[in-house]
Amino acid sequence: MDNDIALRINKERLWDSIHRMAVIGATAKGGCRRLALTDEDVDARKLFLTWAADAGCSIRIDSMGNIFARRAGLGENSLAPVATGSHLDTQPSGGKFDGPLGVICGIEVLRTLDDLGINTEKPLEVIVWTNEEGSRFAPAMVGSGVFSGIYDLEYGLSRSDRSGVTIGEELNRLGYSGSELPGNHPLDSFFEVHIEQGPILEANGKTIGIVTGAQAQRWYEVTINGQEAHAGTTPMERRKDALVGAAQIISYLEKLASSFTDSRATVGLIEVSPNSRNTIPGHVFFTIDIRHPDDIVIAEMASQINETISTISTDLKLSTQVSEIWQAPSLKFDVTATNTVRSAVKNLELSSMEIVSGAGHDACQVAHVVPTAMIFIPCADGISHNEIESASISDVEAGCNVLLNTILAHAGRIDGIGSRQD
Amino acid sequence: MDNDIALRINKERLWDSIHRMAVIGATAKGGCRRLALTDEDVDARKLFLTWAADAGCSIRIDSMGNIFARRAGLGENSLAPVATGSHLDTQPSGGKFDGPLGVICGIEVLRTLDDLGINTEKPLEVIVWTNEEGSRFAPAMVGSGVFSGIYDLEYGLSRSDRSGVTIGEELNRLGYSGSELPGNHPLDSFFEVHIEQGPILEANGKTIGIVTGAQAQRWYEVTINGQEAHAGTTPMERRKDALVGAAQIISYLEKLASSFTDSRATVGLIEVSPNSRNTIPGHVFFTIDIRHPDDIVIAEMASQINETISTISTDLKLSTQVSEIWQAPSLKFDVTATNTVRSAVKNLELSSMEIVSGAGHDACQVAHVVPTAMIFIPCADGISHNEIESASISDVEAGCNVLLNTILAHAGRIDGIGSRQD
Repeated sequence: MDNDIALRINKERLWDSIHRMAVIGATAKGGCRRLALTDEDVDARKLFLTWAADAGCSIRIDSMGNIFARRAGLGENSLAPVATGSHLDTQPSGGKFDGPLGVICGIEVLRTLDDLGINTEKPLEVIVWTNEEGSRFAPAMVGSGVFSGIYDLEYGLSRSDRSGVTIGEELNRLGYSGSELPGNHPLDSFFEVHIEQGPILEANGKTIGIVTGAQAQRWYEVTINGQEAHAGTTPMERRKDALVGAAQIISYLEKLASSFTDSRATVGLIEVSPNSRNTIPGHVFFTIDIRHPDDIVIAEMASQINETISTISTDLKLSTQVSEIWQAPSLKFDVTATNTVRSAVKNLELSSMEIVSGAGHDACQVAHVVPTAMIFIPCADGISHNEIESASISDVEAGCNVLLNTILAHAGRIDGIGSRQD
Repeated sequence: MDNDIALRINKERLWDSIHRMAVIGATAKGGCRRLALTDEDVDARKLFLTWAADAGCSIRIDSMGNIFARRAGLGENSLAPVATGSHLDTQPSGGKFDGPLGVICGIEVLRTLDDLGINTEKPLEVIVWTNEEGSRFAPAMVGSGVFSGIYDLEYGLSRSDRSGVTIGEELNRLGYSGSELPGNHPLDSFFEVHIEQGPILEANGKTIGIVTGAQAQRWYEVTINGQEAHAGTTPMERRKDALVGAAQIISYLEKLASSFTDSRATVGLIEVSPNSRNTIPGHVFFTIDIRHPDDIVIAEMASQINETISTISTDLKLSTQVSEIWQAPSLKFDVTATNTVRSAVKNLELSSMEIVSGAGHDACQVAHVVPTAMIFIPCADGISHNEIESASISDVEAGCNVLLNTILAHAGRIDGIGSRQD
């Protein structure tokens, strides 16, 4: 077999596995609801473990619930593995591809190597990261964040959902609190395949996005306290309506983000109390997510937002607290790892372009401690975090082919000789 | 005993009963959570039935769950009763007085008549109306509305809460679906004591509000459909953010109502889907409550609101449905019944003023079919629909004294002779 000829995965098998995974937490509109560390997330993990066992992997789980499925190499057992993976949790009404694609591409790479009788010098690992979405437990990318030393373990385990249940409690309940200390697990390199979740590749007619970096993000929690009062009897000028305050802030954020090139601002979650038709809302909690490729610009946005929220609160006689609960600076991926992706794309003769990720990904956390690169494929109309999220079988195949050849280049391909220690 | 000397109730007993009722569904901040047809509401009804039995009343319940506790008169059994009452359900975080005050004043009137050995020619009734608040089941005042023929029975029973449970289902579950057909129950007259729920009496230093009428109200339900998408990757100009649409509408409503004298507009309830921090909201449901003393002005407000919602929706590429789910025109209470209240206030030498109710009340429904009047007392800072809602013992006493003397004037006071048929 000629090492220069690009290898190819089995697209039907890959496509079938993506759809078998999507049955877990399937929604009526064709999407998935598999919030982090719910019973559905555990079912998805069990299916992954079955596939990993079938591929001859050994399993390690760390105390953040991150799963490492290892295919041994032919070299020294102590060599750090070349790793890939993503996450299996989804948004409340998410799609089939955001996360599972990257995990299942990893499994498909192992299956293909078995088919072709190919070994590697270094071990290979497929990783499932815990709580990437940040939808049930804020912030996002907590499992990979603790692994990468961005958060300490205590912080990770103590993140709680809106009803006060923590990640640590759920890991214990579900039996996914592993014995390995997060981060005590060297990796040679990490590669993640993901849908773009935006419209750029599709608009440019490209199959592969070579991801050079990711934009900066900040997450805020805002609590507004006004005064509950009767909707019929309380004159407008005497009101302290917390929802009117939130509404003015949300309208402002949309205008602010529209005024900065390439910026984003989103209020995705809001809770109103007492939430009764004929009572002026006394209390509102909501979240803000802002992003920009430039760290200086996002800092300027944050400053303007704080100032405006303060002005709106004073004008409306409201008491408002704003907490920045998370921030990630902008990021550049590893040049060498990214060059390997470029070579694989070229060998496979795929159309491609360089792209900056608008979303955060586990790879953005891992990149702080491991040489890391990402491979994007298009999704229809750029829509993600939506049940109608979709990607074509040929693009999925292309992304997985790039992953296969990238991993082999890093792991040291060994054809037809030796036996693994698995 | 001289019929011209105003009689007086027992204020300590009245105050004690208000606070015994407030224990049911009591909240940490001193208020009550007793949503219509929940187990708490039923506990409140049971306490009322105990008190009514102690006062020698017979009980009838109609198929809307409205309870009629009757103290027989000395006259013909067929005479229509002089009635009073209000409601026992509360807002999600409501107060001790909104509703229970009017019911318990009725009980206190009966107790006082027993103390004084006074009978009446016509029977007396204390009524508990079902689902006045409209917080769990929209619209408000449904029990009194069906009684008064404003809604038909099928409409009343089929009103559902946000989880789809109907009033009819809850009445059956709780055993409060009575045999009497709502409205098949003639009343001579109806008087309701209530806290003002606004700041006017307090600001004017008056003890009693002689309520001449109530303002017009309209309730709307608004559904906005946009498109769920990723908060990090979706450019601002490609978004269809349903919450941004809602925010612009809420901000607009506040400005609109502030621009019309004496008008009110409130968005009290909002639900966002998928309600996830890093997903652009695809769907929002919210309610609008608008009020004005003038039917022509409220119609103009409604027209402007519909037009503006349509403009905002188009600008933001959203699909929006607005349904008017309820409207009540402005109302004038019965002149004769209100004059009786005036006389009682005068005999009791209480300070008073004429007032238009900003809130809807059961009396506003009953007024369509029965000569009706209302008696307001002040509440602290005009605050209601809030756990800190409060009224003074002397104002509560004054309101109940007015009710006692008003009822006696209508029912035909008979001192010290005869025996009732109870």
